[in-house]
Amino acid sequence: MADMFHPKFDAAGLLTAVVTDSRTGELLMVAHMNAEALALTRASGRAHFWSRSRQALWMKGETSGHVLDVEEIRVDCDQDALWLKARPAGPACHTGARSCFFRRLDEAGPHRLVRLDD
Amino acid sequence: MADMFHPKFDAAGLLTAVVTDSRTGELLMVAHMNAEALALTRASGRAHFWSRSRQALWMKGETSGHVLDVEEIRVDCDQDALWLKARPAGPACHTGARSCFFRRLDEAGPHRLVRLDD
Repeated sequence: MADMFHPKFDAAGLLTAVVTDSRTGELLMVAHMNAEALALTRASGRAHFWSRSRQALWMKGETSGHVLDVEEIRVDCDQDALWLKARPAGPACHTGARSCFFRRLDEAGPHRLVRLDD
Repeated sequence: MADMFHPKFDAAGLLTAVVTDSRTGELLMVAHMNAEALALTRASGRAHFWSRSRQALWMKGETSGHVLDVEEIRVDCDQDALWLKARPAGPACHTGARSCFFRRLDEAGPHRLVRLDD
């Protein structure tokens, strides 16, 4: 059983999906997948997610063209999170940043963020 | 406002927290933080999380000794996910694996996993 894939979807039917750049290793984004998004990702090789805010299935890059070509999918020990190693066709973030994680917390104050060069 | 830290906790009061090894860049684990876990992490420099299954605060490594010394915390564009870059004192996974993501999905079958060398 340990080496069978039986994803543990949460109460909303979702897994957490973490995407890194397969070339640089950089963390690009965190999103969610339902069973259909996962199946479409595996069948097409392009990352699909479930948008919790829009309650809709979407393919990353469907409007921007900044698709994610998925090279490997890993699952964690308790099978509620996936790690997608992907080649990004452009900026992963809707803001235009390469990664959604373009700001770091600053020790100088609990609410201060420092924007990093992209 | 864009550069102020105002984390967007979900309905359960949680953020997704992704941990990578600050030296190798490897994805180690995905967990969750409530406000208290985040505050303790920032104050102590050691990763604390909220366990959804146990409904309890925990410090990673509190029993195993495999703590995570946090070097940087980043937040994503919509402030519902954190990226912790950390130095692990030992295996990050409770199974003894270096990373919780030690298995990949196999194209040969929808439920097949391949265990990777650690």
